[in-house]
Amino acid sequence: MPRSIQLNGRGELTHLLSTEELPRAILQKILDHASDFLDIDRMEVKNADFLAGQSIFNLFFENSTRTRTTFEIAARKLSADVVNLNVSASSTAKGESLLDTIDNLAAMKADMFVVRHNQAGAPYLIARHINQVAPHIHILNAGDGRHAHPTQALLDMFTIRHFKGDFHQLRVALVGDVLHSRVARSDIHALSTLGVPDIRVVAPLTLMPSGLSEMGVKPFTNLDEGLEGVDVVIALRLQNERMRGAMLPSPQEYFKHYGLTEQRLRRAKPDAIVMHPGPMNRGVEIDSVVADGAQSVILTQVTFGIAVRMAVMHLLSEVRP
Amino acid sequence: MPRSIQLNGRGELTHLLSTEELPRAILQKILDHASDFLDIDRMEVKNADFLAGQSIFNLFFENSTRTRTTFEIAARKLSADVVNLNVSASSTAKGESLLDTIDNLAAMKADMFVVRHNQAGAPYLIARHINQVAPHIHILNAGDGRHAHPTQALLDMFTIRHFKGDFHQLRVALVGDVLHSRVARSDIHALSTLGVPDIRVVAPLTLMPSGLSEMGVKPFTNLDEGLEGVDVVIALRLQNERMRGAMLPSPQEYFKHYGLTEQRLRRAKPDAIVMHPGPMNRGVEIDSVVADGAQSVILTQVTFGIAVRMAVMHLLSEVRP
Amino acid sequence: MPRSIQLNGRGELTHLLSTEELPRAILQKILDHASDFLDIDRMEVKNADFLAGQSIFNLFFENSTRTRTTFEIAARKLSADVVNLNVSASSTAKGESLLDTIDNLAAMKADMFVVRHNQAGAPYLIARHINQVAPHIHILNAGDGRHAHPTQALLDMFTIRHFKGDFHQLRVALVGDVLHSRVARSDIHALSTLGVPDIRVVAPLTLMPSGLSEMGVKPFTNLDEGLEGVDVVIALRLQNERMRGAMLPSPQEYFKHYGLTEQRLRRAKPDAIVMHPGPMNRGVEIDSVVADGAQSVILTQVTFGIAVRMAVMHLLSEVRP
Repeated sequence: MPRSIQLNGRGELTHLLSTEELPRAILQKILDHASDFLDIDRMEVKNADFLAGQSIFNLFFENSTRTRTTFEIAARKLSADVVNLNVSASSTAKGESLLDTIDNLAAMKADMFVVRHNQAGAPYLIARHINQVAPHIHILNAGDGRHAHPTQALLDMFTIRHFKGDFHQLRVALVGDVLHSRVARSDIHALSTLGVPDIRVVAPLTLMPSGLSEMGVKPFTNLDEGLEGVDVVIALRLQNERMRGAMLPSPQEYFKHYGLTEQRLRRAKPDAIVMHPGPMNRGVEIDSVVADGAQSVILTQVTFGIAVRMAVMHLLSEVRP
Repeated sequence: MPRSIQLNGRGELTHLLSTEELPRAILQKILDHASDFLDIDRMEVKNADFLAGQSIFNLFFENSTRTRTTFEIAARKLSADVVNLNVSASSTAKGESLLDTIDNLAAMKADMFVVRHNQAGAPYLIARHINQVAPHIHILNAGDGRHAHPTQALLDMFTIRHFKGDFHQLRVALVGDVLHSRVARSDIHALSTLGVPDIRVVAPLTLMPSGLSEMGVKPFTNLDEGLEGVDVVIALRLQNERMRGAMLPSPQEYFKHYGLTEQRLRRAKPDAIVMHPGPMNRGVEIDSVVADGAQSVILTQVTFGIAVRMAVMHLLSEVRP
Repeated sequence: MPRSIQLNGRGELTHLLSTEELPRAILQKILDHASDFLDIDRMEVKNADFLAGQSIFNLFFENSTRTRTTFEIAARKLSADVVNLNVSASSTAKGESLLDTIDNLAAMKADMFVVRHNQAGAPYLIARHINQVAPHIHILNAGDGRHAHPTQALLDMFTIRHFKGDFHQLRVALVGDVLHSRVARSDIHALSTLGVPDIRVVAPLTLMPSGLSEMGVKPFTNLDEGLEGVDVVIALRLQNERMRGAMLPSPQEYFKHYGLTEQRLRRAKPDAIVMHPGPMNRGVEIDSVVADGAQSVILTQVTFGIAVRMAVMHLLSEVRP
């Protein structure tokens, strides 16, 4: 098997593109380091200066204020200089190619690119190119098409480890539009690598991806059955544009069969936690009583996301090609 | 009377939402502290580090580059990290509720929200919610609908005090579209609290708000009469979209009756100052000769606005819930 | 001859608006100082603090993410506070005049304005006004209409000097849409002042400006002849909107006659360098083999551009009116 482009010759993480090919040791190293930053934050220390003088470019070919903001805050807390580029609005409008844009930004003394793109694989294309022309620059995938969203998966793993301690006894259910979810895909790979023995997907047949059994994932079309005895429920966002297509009858109908309500949640373990990557559609994939309830750790995920992104950026910055 | 949500249990300012309910001592404390920052600035000291490591979010649900910039500069001069969010363009487009957006940003380790919203009361809604979920975060109203614009009022008060020394002998006239002006509303409350004995409003009947007499304000429909012997003239912006409605015949007609010209200004005291919150419509509510004349302190207001916003941010940052 | 508005009473550079009127000593001083910043950068020192506490406003009346980013990075590497203003989207929409906008921003304690505007001469208008109202503020032209783009010309000169050492023996060809190019205009003035004896322009007649001979520039309509024995080729961007007008038949036809290919380039000296201000239209004004070839220094130009802009900002910041 060819070595992943995410690792350098010494097996160190040099780009974070996906959780798919990452060894368990690297996942654990990131989670451990994120704990350090959570502690620093609690001590109310001022910004760390680990990345002082470094330039981090947020290259968002697809708009996402929320995700962009979490990376911006993480970078600033490390004292990096952050440059935000809404790339769709600029050079691509002038007909410049993606790789010419990358070459130019690399020439502006960049140290790291945080890339979001609506095409699956775009961060890989950029990483392969950067390895040729400017291998000291690190690529961080902030979501590419339906493919991967590795920092979201890492903060999900951090959240699960924080509340459940160990991965080896867990039953985890991902509920909703798994087919279109890059978060679900990245979560499944990370959960599997970290040793979760029972990973479940609950979705209507029209939103159920193929190839689940090869990944060791159990499919359920019935929500009650899927939630039976789970430790962790990860509710997924149902995107509006998919709610009025051939795939789904109506938001009301979807909520009736797949909405996470208090009553449904009783099938899970009493101390099960409820997660969601946000933004939520209240009353569609999740009931407000559950979203704001005692088992919800949804906002804790957001806070942990800053520490996890700080950890990834700091670790990448210390690696040489 | 219930205590204002702007104050904490010890009577300290914890959110700045309006000048309406603020005690005189707090208004004066802000003005006094702004003087300190004006002095620091004149000494050409580098940025103060009072807010180093703190994250200030500019949440602009209504676009305003000018106002956003003044808050951004003030925050940076205090060494805060500033994150600009044009919120209308982001999560709300994905159907997320206002309070879910607030919850998420609060979870990103925010210390202060500067909020601008086209709905009156939105900053109050946010402050009430924040007091429940993250009471360490301070809310700063940067303009909400037709309701309030407290930092503009405070910089207006700072300007008046700077040039006139004491509030207790003053005659102040607000001229123009008072009905739609959040600046006028906030100015009137502040002037009244600070002890100005003669507050006047000059406007056509169609732009004259009700309830002025309860506030101790004298209405005038004749500009010459309203300006008679005043110490301070605050000209208000006439918004373009209101110039061609049932309310007003035409910009020319408006200027003829309510435009501030040199000739009109002669009714005021010889040392009267002319103020305007900007941006100006030259030739509509104010003549260029007056706007650029010796009595105009319009640009001084802008400079003082930085010091006043620094003072408010610094004072808020020192208050615990 | 009246003294240039770019220089103060002591002959020092106080605004950078054009290369046209600048004495050779000032051009050389900027190039020399840029070398210092290039060295600092190579030593991997953290940001210099020459502009700490200073506020630089990027006033882009015309959108350009790429150019704005280079100025933003340069300013941050000098530890300045940078405020980005996309001005077309803000106050001008509210009917405020250009100079009222400038007055307001000046009152916000600005130290430098980086101005881009689609109207030739706008930065001069601003500089003349600033000299009256706030002469401590420096104006830096980041491109005005078809008139000038002085920092691009300076980085081009820096690049030429870096690779060719001395200007006095050089043959330099500018190829393409010279008529609409502010880069070409600024390059020609700088090359001439720095003593380049043979400056050539290669363009179809429809894109050839008048007045070249007065500037000592030799016009060529034949690419092979124009490239004969040159040391430096500066390819110019052909703007898309001009490709389908009366001026040009088609991109393919243009490439056939004026596209820079390997074969064409053989007419130049074997060690000739190829430059382009970007963004490139590959296959229109330049062939990919040349753009990515051994003689291309196009990305080096981008890197040098950061150092040159740092040098200009630092030199301006040290000059008093």
